[in-house]
This record gives sequence, C-alpha cells and structure tokens, in this order.
Amino acid sequence: MGQKRYDFGLVGLGVMGRNFILNVADKGFSAFGHDLDGNKVASLLEEGGNTDKINASTDSKTFLESLSCPRKLMLLVPAGKAVDAVIEGLLPYLDQGDIIIDGGNSFYKDTDRRESYLKSKGIHFFGAGVSGGAKGARCGPSIMPGGSKEAYQEVKPIFEAVAANFNGEPCVAYLGPKSAGNYVKMVHNGIEYGLMQLTSEIYDILKKAGNYSNPELQRLFDSWNHGRLQSFLVEITADILKQKDDKTEGYLVDMILDKAKQKGTGKWTSQNAMELGIPIPTIDVAVSMRELSALKDERLQAHSIYPKKEFEKIDKEALGKWAEEALYFGFILTYAQGFHQLTEASKAYGYDLNMPTVAKIWRAGCIIRAGLLADIANAFDKNKSTTHLVLNEDFAAKIKPTLPAVRHLVAFAVNNGIPLPGLNNALTYFDGFTTNRLPLNLIQAQRDYFGSHTYERTDMGGIFHTDWEI
Amino acid sequence: MGQKRYDFGLVGLGVMGRNFILNVADKGFSAFGHDLDGNKVASLLEEGGNTDKINASTDSKTFLESLSCPRKLMLLVPAGKAVDAVIEGLLPYLDQGDIIIDGGNSFYKDTDRRESYLKSKGIHFFGAGVSGGAKGARCGPSIMPGGSKEAYQEVKPIFEAVAANFNGEPCVAYLGPKSAGNYVKMVHNGIEYGLMQLTSEIYDILKKAGNYSNPELQRLFDSWNHGRLQSFLVEITADILKQKDDKTEGYLVDMILDKAKQKGTGKWTSQNAMELGIPIPTIDVAVSMRELSALKDERLQAHSIYPKKEFEKIDKEALGKWAEEALYFGFILTYAQGFHQLTEASKAYGYDLNMPTVAKIWRAGCIIRAGLLADIANAFDKNKSTTHLVLNEDFAAKIKPTLPAVRHLVAFAVNNGIPLPGLNNALTYFDGFTTNRLPLNLIQAQRDYFGSHTYERTDMGGIFHTDWEI
Repeated sequence: MGQKRYDFGLVGLGVMGRNFILNVADKGFSAFGHDLDGNKVASLLEEGGNTDKINASTDSKTFLESLSCPRKLMLLVPAGKAVDAVIEGLLPYLDQGDIIIDGGNSFYKDTDRRESYLKSKGIHFFGAGVSGGAKGARCGPSIMPGGSKEAYQEVKPIFEAVAANFNGEPCVAYLGPKSAGNYVKMVHNGIEYGLMQLTSEIYDILKKAGNYSNPELQRLFDSWNHGRLQSFLVEITADILKQKDDKTEGYLVDMILDKAKQKGTGKWTSQNAMELGIPIPTIDVAVSMRELSALKDERLQAHSIYPKKEFEKIDKEALGKWAEEALYFGFILTYAQGFHQLTEASKAYGYDLNMPTVAKIWRAGCIIRAGLLADIANAFDKNKSTTHLVLNEDFAAKIKPTLPAVRHLVAFAVNNGIPLPGLNNALTYFDGFTTNRLPLNLIQAQRDYFGSHTYERTDMGGIFHTDWEI
Repeated sequence: MGQKRYDFGLVGLGVMGRNFILNVADKGFSAFGHDLDGNKVASLLEEGGNTDKINASTDSKTFLESLSCPRKLMLLVPAGKAVDAVIEGLLPYLDQGDIIIDGGNSFYKDTDRRESYLKSKGIHFFGAGVSGGAKGARCGPSIMPGGSKEAYQEVKPIFEAVAANFNGEPCVAYLGPKSAGNYVKMVHNGIEYGLMQLTSEIYDILKKAGNYSNPELQRLFDSWNHGRLQSFLVEITADILKQKDDKTEGYLVDMILDKAKQKGTGKWTSQNAMELGIPIPTIDVAVSMRELSALKDERLQAHSIYPKKEFEKIDKEALGKWAEEALYFGFILTYAQGFHQLTEASKAYGYDLNMPTVAKIWRAGCIIRAGLLADIANAFDKNKSTTHLVLNEDFAAKIKPTLPAVRHLVAFAVNNGIPLPGLNNALTYFDGFTTNRLPLNLIQAQRDYFGSHTYERTDMGGIFHTDWEI
C-alpha cells in the first residue's frame, strides 16, 4: 500500500468539476480528478497539481485505484444518459460500500432509479444538487444531498468544508432518502425562475414607464440589495446594469437579445407541481415567459398589429417605491409556492424534509440566496405548525404592508400594457389563497351538468348530482 | 353464415357507451354491445333491444363473432390500464384488418404505444376523443379520430352519421396518424379548463362587486349566449343560475362547495405544452386554480389573517358591459393558446393537423363549442399563413375593441382583491406577445453572469459570453 490514496474523487473536469475539486483541495482534503478529455486533466494538473492534494488521470482504473475506501466519488457530468454511462463504466471496479455522488441537475426519478439499482449492487448513490454556478463551486456552493443517511456520514466532513458558510453554519445538510436532494435542487431552480422573472419585470416597468436610466436602475437595485431585498439576484442585477458594452458606446444589457433560454429544471418543477396538484403559478408563468420570449418574430409582427400606447405619466420616485415593495412581495410569494411544493412532495415521496434545514442551506452559496431565507428558516423554526408561509404570522406582517403598492403597480401595468405576469400571478395567487369563497362552485356545477361529475355542498356532507337540464 | 352480423361493436356499456350505441342504432346501423357487467348488458337490451339494430352480451367471444368483418369495435372504458386489459382480452379472437377505436380520454403516448403494438399484429387502432358528455354521446358528439387514414374509411360512414352536425357538416373528421385524435381531444379539454375558469371569474366579479343576483346573472349570461359569446358553457351557466335548490329556499349554485375537481386532461395539456415549449398560461392557471380551490381549510385560515376590504363602488351596468368584453377577449386568447399548441404539436409529432378542420369539428357537439369556432375556422381558411390567432387580421379586429374594457375590469379586480387569474393571464400573455422588447435580456444576462450560459446580441449574430464580475 505504498501508493497514495486520495480522499475524494471527481469525474467530469468541466468548469464546475475543476472548480469543485480545487475547492476540496483548498479545504485540506486530497482529491483525484478524472475525465476522458486529456486537455481537461492537463488543465486541472496545471492549476492544482503543484500541491500534493490534487492528482488526475484520463484512465478510470488509475482513478479508482487512487481513492481511499470506501471510495467517495462525485460526478459532475451533464444530466441524462452521460450519468448512466459513467456509472456503468465505473461499476465493475467499485467495491461494496463505495459512494457515488451525482452533483448534476438530474431528474429526480432518474436518481430514484439509479439509487435503487446501485443499492442492489451494494453501492451507495447520492443525488446532490449543487448551486452557485462556477464561482460557487470554487468558493463555496450550497449542496443538497439526498440518499443513505448512514453513508452520508462518510462525505459529510468534505461537504461541510467545501460548502458555503452562513454565520458559521455550512450550507449543506443531509436532506432525506432517495432523490430528496435532486428534488430540492429542482424546486430551488423553479424558485430561481420565478425570482429572475420578477426581477426582470420590475427592471422593465421602471425603465419603460419610469424612464429610469441604467445608472439610476443600478443605484436602485444596489440600494435594495442593502435592504430587505438583499439577495444574489438583486446584487448581480446591479452589477449587470453597470457593465458597459465593449462593442458600442452603451450599456451591455441593452444590447442583449430578449430571448431567454432554459435548461429544463424550471419546467420540471412546474410539471411536477401539476402532478402533485400544488399551485405554483408564479413559477409556471416564469417558464411560459421564457417560451414566449423565444417567439421574437411573432412578437415583432404582433407589435406592429397592436402598437403600444404612450404610458401614463407617473411619479418616478413613487414608482420606485412601489417597485421595491412589489418585488419583495413577489419574492415572498415565490418562496411560499416553492416551499409549499416541497412540503407536499415530502409527504408524497417520503422525503421527510425539514423545511428550516432547506431554508438554512439556501442562505448562502446558491443562486436564490437572500436575506429572506433566514427569515423563512426562522419562521418555520419558530412555528412548527407552519404549512404555508402565507399563513405564518411573521410573514403576514411582512406581506400586509406591501399590498397597496403591489396593487398600484400591477393596476398601472395592466392599464398601460406592460406585462408583469410573474407579479400578477403572485398577486392573483395571493388573492385566491385568501378568498374564503372562490367561484369554483360554478365550475363544479358545470362539470356536474355536462359530465355528471357530482359536487359537494356547503351545508351538508356527501356527494350530490343534479339533473340540470330543465 | 346464417348468423346476423352487426355493423359496429361497443365495449363498455356505462352511460357514455350505452348512449353512443343507441345513437349508432338510431342512425340505421346495427350495433352489438359488450360489458362484463350483466346489469349493464340487460339495461341496454331493455332500452334498445326491441329493434333488430341492437344486441349485447357479457361474453366477449359471442360479441366478436357477431360483428361483420373487418370488425369495427369501439372501447368506452376508463383511460389507463382498463384499455390495455380489454385489448389483451380481445386480441386472440381478432382478425387482420379489424379496427379498434379507443373513445376514452387516453393519454396520447399510450395511444402511440397501442397503435404501434396493434399494427404489428395487423390490427388498426384509433384513438378517437369523444366530447359532449352523456347527452352528446346520445344525440351527437364531436368525435376526434386519429390513426390509419385508410382504415378510417371503414368507420367514416358510422362516425359521420352519429356525430353532431353543424350546418349540414358532421363534427367528425380524420385528423391525422397515430395519437392525433387523442392529442386534439386533450387540448380540447385544456381549452375547456380555460373557458370554465374565465366564466367562473366573470360570474364571481359580477356577483361580488356588482351585486348581481342569480336571476340577474342568469339573464346576463343568457343574453350573452345570444350574442358573440354564444357557446355551450355560457348557455349552461345561464341554466345553472336558474336552478333552485331542492333542500333550501335558495339557488343551488350558492350551495355548491367551491372545491373543483379534475380528471387530469387539463394537467396533461399544460405539462405537454411545457414539454413543447409553448406558453399557454391561461390554461395553466385554470389547472392551478382547481388545485388552489381544494385548499379550502388553508383558504379559510388565510381569509381570517388577511380580511378582504369592502369593494369600491362601481356602476353595475358598466361592470356588466366590461364583463362581456373581457369574457370575449378571454375566450379568444384561450382558443388562441390551444390552437398554438396544436400547431406546434402537429409539427413535433408529425400529426399534420389541419386547423380549419379541427375548428370545424368543434363547432357543435363538444363542450367548447361556440360561435367563435366558426370564426376561427374561417380565419384559418381565409388566411392559410395564420400561425397564431392573435396575428390574424380578423381576430385583431375582434380583440382590439375589447382591450379598454379588459384593462378596466382587470385593474378593478386587482385593486379590490378579486382574483381573476385566467383573465389576468390572458391579458399579460397578450401584452407579452405584443411587446417587441421584453425584459428577458436581463434574464439572459443573469444566466450568463452566474452560469456562463451565453447570450445573443440585438445588433449582430453569434453567441457571446461576458466576464461580468468587475
């Protein structure tokens, strides 16, 4: 056993993988990287090979023989078939008790399938969402691991060392069995879609109706980032707004085409919420708006058919104030929808998620990190019976004062043809949620009328059917 | 061959099946029913057995031996495993060239699987959505068949005879290969969700803010049904509003619990639209609102935390006028979203759907039948290049005059906390669709900032990435 054994293995030395392994080594663990692409291996060795903490090889056998047992090896490869291919390639050389961690955005059902398959071979499998982008991977991401609780103890010291840190607490925790980690990461990304959509809408109305210049917007977002809206997305929006274009005289943000792409995790969140029967309309419409943005030719044609009117005059300062309140309201409602989905998924899939834990590991490192997450963790901690943030008294106290501004801003946008679908859906969701009597009685009557689908009554139990055609 | 052979077979003698077979016999075709439940067989024989056109048996062999060849047999059994079970049970006794028609709301992917499986056995399989409820099945439904074009000729005379009729044209047509029929029926149901949600919202705001009584609402909906909003759903809403409760002094609609159920076809429509990348937010939120309606306990709790304010005074007549315009706008946008989804699905799945044909077979018989569908058929017929109804000149002329009323009504609802999510999403979708410059440039900047996802520029081709952190 003269050969040096490494604490941690990493397969897939793209930007995320290289950064993650450098992060592991920085924290004092030795790590061995593997990629079939010799350039990537060379690039890692160049960057980190001068310490004895890092090594790498294109050869999978060398890689596996270099890891201490039980092997702890993480995959940072594209979600989908690549994950299965890597697993199949490594499997013949693994030993009972080895641990594979999938750090990509794998679909939770794939993780369940892989976990169960590998368990039958005596191998532990973790789906561990990693958020924070390239910089997060290098300096401290938020990590969302799910799988065998026992096996987690083996990777815990490494994960806790490399994860982001919030007031001394690492932004990683064991979340639950099976695909709990990938599921939580999926909903994280759904929330991310909602927050990004909301941020873009607020930017839009301030720019179009309030005539805010980029420097004015930059100062506004920057000031918000030092208040209750403190968050990564608001922070980088301020950064983005000050970036000059290197090809023209203007600001880069103005030169970027208004077609947003997506990689599918937001879509999965919405599709799964529908599967579970949980309404998350702010996230749904954030997905829809990315799709709508792609229809640029149709939009240009439609714009010529339905020209926009001039906007009503509005006080710039007042608009800015409403915007802050509306964004705060929208952020809260988006987190509320996401946590609601997690709460129900936890029951449906047996994850047994702890909501304060989820909120805590999102406080730093990840894309949706925000001051609000500490409040959410506290709210769930303080009142264990909280099933929905809108029903939590601390959050009611935050939401109520924002409502007049939200209504002013949304009504102004509606009257002026400025689409604020994310904020609109946050508000109609809130207005529906706080309505004791929705008009869905009429829908049940219609369903019973044409399809004999029956209905319930307000004044007595039971299932009723009426022969409506009189 | 002294035995009488029947033209048409029907498996599953529930309400829909019994009504459909009686309809077939009324049109002069002989039909043989089959159900394992002897009571259902007896009930059919009692109702229709006095003619020589109808017979039935619990025995599947007798059933199959009684059908003329190629056998044309339709299943009206619950979607899912029951369909596979029935197929497997019949298969050993079928002959090459026989035709099975699945008349249920089967998921389109199941239909593709079954069609391909049965083709390998020499059997034709049709997925044929049937809409119109029990009454439609008896008196003339809209039928949406997809499968082998050749084999369709065999069932065409029967389907054209039993289908609803619009100005002499039958509400059935061959739609396309494979699951085209089930897919079109799925989107039909998605549109149905949207229209029902919109109708319920308009009912709600008139009742709550306009203090319309049930008789006043009944008269209003009835008058709308004689105008440009003429449609089955508006018609039955008027019917529903006059129905007295047999247990109390009041109107039945007021006694129905505001929890709407769903059977999943609306959800499938939304999930599939996300798969295809087509925004259909009015339908999405109609699904969400059914889910939200089910959270009655949470809503009551929320209502006590956030009590509703008194509504602003509003002129009853003006509100009624806005409501009609808004409902008309909402209906148009919902159809537009549904037809957009069909257009893209047709390309993605190779259905080669003809939009005027789809609109035409929906003009009568089905739940979403409406005067608007004749206009839609005409619009697609007249301008073959129409890819989206919002871009069609005839529809632009319908949409434009409604916009002021839509904005008045939505802004009023926003200011007064009355949730109109369906209408709101119709409007923000429209406002987004007609916007030449959406703020999704900021979202692409954010994605490039934290994930190096790159962006396009407005002034030159290519893919760009910026190192944002300055």
